[in-house]
Amino acid sequence: MSYFEKVNQIKYEGPNSTNPYAFKYYNPEEQINGKSMEEFLRFAVSYWHTFTGEGSDPFGQGTMVRPYDKFSGMDLAKARVEASFEFFEKMNVPFFCFHDFDVAPEADTLKETYKNLDEIVAMIKEYLKTSKTKLLWNTANMFSHPRWLSGAATSPNADVFAYAAAKVKKGLEIGKELGSENYVFWGGREGYETLLNTDMKLELDNLARFFHMAKDYANEIGFTGQFLIEPKPKEPTKHQYDFDVATGLAFLQSYGLKDHFKFNIEANHATLAGHTFEHELHVARINGMLGSVDANQGDPLLGWDTDEFPTDLYSTTLAMYEIIKNDGLGSGGLNFDAKVRRGSFDPEDLFLAHIAGMDSFAVGTKVAQKMIDDKVLEDFVADRYRSYTEGIGLEIVEGKTDFKKLEQYALGLDRITNKSGRQENLKMILNQYLLDAYRG
Amino acid sequence: MSYFEKVNQIKYEGPNSTNPYAFKYYNPEEQINGKSMEEFLRFAVSYWHTFTGEGSDPFGQGTMVRPYDKFSGMDLAKARVEASFEFFEKMNVPFFCFHDFDVAPEADTLKETYKNLDEIVAMIKEYLKTSKTKLLWNTANMFSHPRWLSGAATSPNADVFAYAAAKVKKGLEIGKELGSENYVFWGGREGYETLLNTDMKLELDNLARFFHMAKDYANEIGFTGQFLIEPKPKEPTKHQYDFDVATGLAFLQSYGLKDHFKFNIEANHATLAGHTFEHELHVARINGMLGSVDANQGDPLLGWDTDEFPTDLYSTTLAMYEIIKNDGLGSGGLNFDAKVRRGSFDPEDLFLAHIAGMDSFAVGTKVAQKMIDDKVLEDFVADRYRSYTEGIGLEIVEGKTDFKKLEQYALGLDRITNKSGRQENLKMILNQYLLDAYRG
Amino acid sequence: MSYFEKVNQIKYEGPNSTNPYAFKYYNPEEQINGKSMEEFLRFAVSYWHTFTGEGSDPFGQGTMVRPYDKFSGMDLAKARVEASFEFFEKMNVPFFCFHDFDVAPEADTLKETYKNLDEIVAMIKEYLKTSKTKLLWNTANMFSHPRWLSGAATSPNADVFAYAAAKVKKGLEIGKELGSENYVFWGGREGYETLLNTDMKLELDNLARFFHMAKDYANEIGFTGQFLIEPKPKEPTKHQYDFDVATGLAFLQSYGLKDHFKFNIEANHATLAGHTFEHELHVARINGMLGSVDANQGDPLLGWDTDEFPTDLYSTTLAMYEIIKNDGLGSGGLNFDAKVRRGSFDPEDLFLAHIAGMDSFAVGTKVAQKMIDDKVLEDFVADRYRSYTEGIGLEIVEGKTDFKKLEQYALGLDRITNKSGRQENLKMILNQYLLDAYRG
Amino acid sequence: MSYFEKVNQIKYEGPNSTNPYAFKYYNPEEQINGKSMEEFLRFAVSYWHTFTGEGSDPFGQGTMVRPYDKFSGMDLAKARVEASFEFFEKMNVPFFCFHDFDVAPEADTLKETYKNLDEIVAMIKEYLKTSKTKLLWNTANMFSHPRWLSGAATSPNADVFAYAAAKVKKGLEIGKELGSENYVFWGGREGYETLLNTDMKLELDNLARFFHMAKDYANEIGFTGQFLIEPKPKEPTKHQYDFDVATGLAFLQSYGLKDHFKFNIEANHATLAGHTFEHELHVARINGMLGSVDANQGDPLLGWDTDEFPTDLYSTTLAMYEIIKNDGLGSGGLNFDAKVRRGSFDPEDLFLAHIAGMDSFAVGTKVAQKMIDDKVLEDFVADRYRSYTEGIGLEIVEGKTDFKKLEQYALGLDRITNKSGRQENLKMILNQYLLDAYRG
Repeated sequence: MSYFEKVNQIKYEGPNSTNPYAFKYYNPEEQINGKSMEEFLRFAVSYWHTFTGEGSDPFGQGTMVRPYDKFSGMDLAKARVEASFEFFEKMNVPFFCFHDFDVAPEADTLKETYKNLDEIVAMIKEYLKTSKTKLLWNTANMFSHPRWLSGAATSPNADVFAYAAAKVKKGLEIGKELGSENYVFWGGREGYETLLNTDMKLELDNLARFFHMAKDYANEIGFTGQFLIEPKPKEPTKHQYDFDVATGLAFLQSYGLKDHFKFNIEANHATLAGHTFEHELHVARINGMLGSVDANQGDPLLGWDTDEFPTDLYSTTLAMYEIIKNDGLGSGGLNFDAKVRRGSFDPEDLFLAHIAGMDSFAVGTKVAQKMIDDKVLEDFVADRYRSYTEGIGLEIVEGKTDFKKLEQYALGLDRITNKSGRQENLKMILNQYLLDAYRG
Repeated sequence: MSYFEKVNQIKYEGPNSTNPYAFKYYNPEEQINGKSMEEFLRFAVSYWHTFTGEGSDPFGQGTMVRPYDKFSGMDLAKARVEASFEFFEKMNVPFFCFHDFDVAPEADTLKETYKNLDEIVAMIKEYLKTSKTKLLWNTANMFSHPRWLSGAATSPNADVFAYAAAKVKKGLEIGKELGSENYVFWGGREGYETLLNTDMKLELDNLARFFHMAKDYANEIGFTGQFLIEPKPKEPTKHQYDFDVATGLAFLQSYGLKDHFKFNIEANHATLAGHTFEHELHVARINGMLGSVDANQGDPLLGWDTDEFPTDLYSTTLAMYEIIKNDGLGSGGLNFDAKVRRGSFDPEDLFLAHIAGMDSFAVGTKVAQKMIDDKVLEDFVADRYRSYTEGIGLEIVEGKTDFKKLEQYALGLDRITNKSGRQENLKMILNQYLLDAYRG
Repeated sequence: MSYFEKVNQIKYEGPNSTNPYAFKYYNPEEQINGKSMEEFLRFAVSYWHTFTGEGSDPFGQGTMVRPYDKFSGMDLAKARVEASFEFFEKMNVPFFCFHDFDVAPEADTLKETYKNLDEIVAMIKEYLKTSKTKLLWNTANMFSHPRWLSGAATSPNADVFAYAAAKVKKGLEIGKELGSENYVFWGGREGYETLLNTDMKLELDNLARFFHMAKDYANEIGFTGQFLIEPKPKEPTKHQYDFDVATGLAFLQSYGLKDHFKFNIEANHATLAGHTFEHELHVARINGMLGSVDANQGDPLLGWDTDEFPTDLYSTTLAMYEIIKNDGLGSGGLNFDAKVRRGSFDPEDLFLAHIAGMDSFAVGTKVAQKMIDDKVLEDFVADRYRSYTEGIGLEIVEGKTDFKKLEQYALGLDRITNKSGRQENLKMILNQYLLDAYRG
Repeated sequence: MSYFEKVNQIKYEGPNSTNPYAFKYYNPEEQINGKSMEEFLRFAVSYWHTFTGEGSDPFGQGTMVRPYDKFSGMDLAKARVEASFEFFEKMNVPFFCFHDFDVAPEADTLKETYKNLDEIVAMIKEYLKTSKTKLLWNTANMFSHPRWLSGAATSPNADVFAYAAAKVKKGLEIGKELGSENYVFWGGREGYETLLNTDMKLELDNLARFFHMAKDYANEIGFTGQFLIEPKPKEPTKHQYDFDVATGLAFLQSYGLKDHFKFNIEANHATLAGHTFEHELHVARINGMLGSVDANQGDPLLGWDTDEFPTDLYSTTLAMYEIIKNDGLGSGGLNFDAKVRRGSFDPEDLFLAHIAGMDSFAVGTKVAQKMIDDKVLEDFVADRYRSYTEGIGLEIVEGKTDFKKLEQYALGLDRITNKSGRQENLKMILNQYLLDAYRG
């Protein structure tokens, strides 16, 4: 049985193709840094946006027309698993990601919920035996149900904390069962609505206690997936504790957790925090904390998380620049945490949108690799900072000087000459690399 | 004598060129819509950013190193005119723009100020006799001097209104003298800092009175340049009355001024108002009010007017899409109201930045024209709205129906079927056109 | 039967009261401008937020615990009507507002939907006979159902336009039936997601056609309620056509609709458009277009419509300043288009939140009226603009001068002296009025 | 000689006063937490905004009319010192703050610059012997001169680093000489304009090296003032490394500097980073890092640092709530890093603005202290988190449980009951405390 009859296997057809259902730029077998593009980019489909998303928004109901809409309950859950693996295969993606309740419905009791999960997890495990598509990461949804209204691990209610612990415990077990390469923590409700009713110190202490217990349990059961924190500054909360990479880093350092976590960085979360996507990737990278990526994009003129499929080639290029400099993402990958627009409600739009995202990242990869191969930015940067490789600059870097010596040096300076940063020219060079990428 | 010795004539060398001081994409002789690229795009250099800008910002002094820095007063003003025409010629631009005090220093009395202006205007007029570069528009600076601190035509002080009238009167005379094709009104201080001390109604009435008097005087002296209002939402004021195109349109309609004005639309002003550049161009276009363009770009993560040189190819493409659909800009043009970054302080950066801007608009023009030639968006749009070309839709458009007939029709509808908007696919098609533009 | 058993009639108890379920500042009988506070402020309860809102957000399900949750379908609709009139009575509010589908569920066919509406409207009409609470305005929900995904009157699909016409026709009939004093148009989906697939000109033309037909039909059936447009810049769309008051004004003028509409101004919509609440009220007022108010507030650090209950006393004071200067809102009122926070899920929170809003506007009214009585701002403003009441200023205002005369005058000016705007002092004076309001 | 002849000594006259040149709420002798208001609040005047600020902005020249404008060079510097101590005395403020070049002009060589500084510092020291006003903190301006265009300690140019070292060395010596209680580091240019030309890792490493050397030198000379970092997210840079408190904390932890620094938190910098003022104070407080405050406010609708005098009583109240909970600011204080608006150019406005700020903080202090005395929020919060003081919650907090035990507990939970957060009611209670503060 097919859920996506109208669409055939998506193949690479090259830039000249006019077939909307083909990759024009993403060629999985093309080599990048000694790996195939497929191995290097590690694309993943987000189960929630692609298979359970309905297109609702705060002002309207769902619009999506899905081939499994006729089912409900566990039948719907199973149909979605079938549809998802058909989709993975047709899209030829190596990974997928899910929250627990994307794949199995929450039941009235935790025990029954576990049962639902076990049944679907077994089904997925069966698929994984033969599918090329693997599990990049799983996580627990601890933000949708009303019980999480004031947080999960940071809830003012200890019962909620306990319930969250049970959920993550199960999540780690599922991760181990399905060979997940990572486990993600997105604290959608771990924040506050108003400081007037909040004990932030206790909430942060509890969050740290929760993470330590999670790490202990993962060790106990031998789950070796990378733990990932996904920063977001706000929405749905007024303030989310994992505001951005730097905030997450301060937290992890304060609570002795830095060695156990890396970051899962989402483009649209970066922009909501006032940063570019590449800034967040860069900060994580130079701190050795770049774990994985939620590949999407926002609208800079809108103040909420639009989770659009990534098509901005500047953004994909500058992101891939960081990722290549990081020598890839290790156990992480590029997860399309992106949803088709509410007006793109056809099942076919799911394919078109993933093609757009994968092609856009393939272009970005090609452009970034070429810039790195040519050392176009690296040489400029090396020259700009050259003064730290000799003389007084080298003494500074090697810790061989102090304020008194530096003052003596400064008193002897006639006039300081700086160099132009050439920002406009560098931006145009980036344009040239982009326009040149497929000139054959 | 040469002010820019290090830089030679900038020429088109094509995409393969590695010469930083060459156009790679802007070929003035290339044809676009039956005109040469040069005739169609009508690029202009902004005198203020390029020749009088110093690189200061609210936290620091100027950084720019300019070859005429040794002069001062009227000598400086004259040196700048000489340098500017050398720059125009080397850049091969057809137009420039200026505020009165960009070209001549303000003196202690209005009379002396006029004298300074007359002297420099005569000098410019002499240059214009032989230069290919013409005056796109001039304007009066009514925002820098302390007298304008609460506005010019909207000042609470009638003396200031009178002084502004004198300035614009002179500006119109200069425009006529130099053959300016337009006259621009940017009301940088025409707004308010706080409503607590403001009579907005009187201020708007006065602004309208001012514009009517300006129009009357232009008619009297036979100055036929197009009057242009340049919207900006805020900065330096908390609220500027010409917030955006729609606000300007409401004002012009309310005061019987609509037929006498068009809009000069600046990219960065659009984004500060919460709009895309192309949105503002589009709104002006469909209202028949698209006059000219200040071609720059902002940083969507910064809340002030950064006035960067335009290098975002999406923005230049979508802007040119509107301009081509408008059949060009008539007497208007593409003025680079853009400043090199404070860190790009070399005179050479001025060339590199203009090359970046002109090349980026050339790319945008080529991509937009190809999309229009192929009717790639137009066909999609025509199909999307096809229901208004027949049956009930046609009756709606032709005004042949009413609520009662429509209700009868609606009661007979079984189920309404909408079409997918295909947003992700359209964005990727735009990427394809971009990547394809120079594939030869 | 009582739906809100825990809460008794809310009464005015004065500032010393510690009873959370009492008005401390809102005394309905207190006089303001020759009317009782109740008559002047015309508070209204929003049916949607208060009786049908569930507390869901884009990341989570509803949290609200409501006494009629056990019902469904038409039984739920009826229980809500019963509960609403109990609530109105306990809160002692003079008005309420609703969308059609707040009060009656949408059925499978339009015909059945009409039947549902008729049944509930008859029930409401019966309540209105004895209740002091009247209908401030009604409207049609043309944004939630999937059919509206690309707009209602601006849909690319003519069937949708027709369906919208049927809905508004019914809405006008309901308005007449229930004695509604206004009819509101909020075009939540009348905008675009991307210009790439949009014919904005046709959409705006159709919107104007729709409004003309609505006006014609209202005239035909003798519905005399004021038509109100409610501007909002974005959300759920990327761009909503009724961006702000100025944009709405331009539209109404362009299409000959200005005399038939006023504006319903929402605080949080103003801030999303980059304006203060009082700015939008002011612009509407000086154009004679201030119709009604959606009294809420946003969080200036969040980029979406939070629709919070208004508690910011600066905002309520400055809003009431405009409203008093407008001599009240005529047939309009202060509608609490505000929702209790997701974490304020008790039925009691509905009372506490309305008390907060009503008390906050009562404080604002008292402070604003005192400032107007004392002419504290008016005298300052009169003095600031005094130059336009004599000499050259009077000639400007009376149209008795021109650029040549003004230039002559300006040439004779020695030095222009401006006056300080005293912004800091005025802000502190506002503080004094606030702190002084209840000092007895 | 008097520089501010028109204004006499500012005294406390109580809320009934109509004298604009009097404190209505700030009574220096009033007791707060066992100290006088003056001792507790530790107000400081910012030398730069008050005595050297000219009212210029990116679009206009200075507007301020100052009594020492007739002087220049060192004469001007000396006149400003005289005027400043007259101002301090008339305002009756206990502290002031300055950058090196606020008080003495920069000369052509560092040596001469030192000489200028030494002369003025000696003059200030003389004043300090008899004045009640002391030095809260001093700092070095390392952002205005062109040499700092790409940063000071993070400049790509090692000469600039050395020059910065000399400047801070001198600053620490001046701090010691004048008995400064703190030393502030605001890294206005320590950030980047574009990642394309930036080596962020080297820049951050250098910044840490710089701070270590500064600490070493302070120790060497026995300067014991508290070191303070002042976070700001951007402006003038695109990205400033000290983005917010959390980012600063991560940096200090990463480089072993946490014990040597606290934060100087500015209200308007907080809002530019997407945080409320009280959020930043709170985060610093619970990390033991709250050092001092730059008391101003921004305009939430403007995207740049407006540095307004603080008059928003919500903001002053919630700030003082944090400061009182912190048991005051230790060696820190409330520095008015605020400038009179460009239109408030009279010398008298300086007094009116400081009165507004001091009165507003006095109100905030009184309201906050009353709320703390009544435990109105504390009791609510204690009750909200009560579950962590017993049973499973206590086990969580005491580290006596793990995921397995918590899962067992969760499996036994029937239904989790949360409590309403009562946000609307809490906000109205805050209003009541505000309106009640001066009801006698």
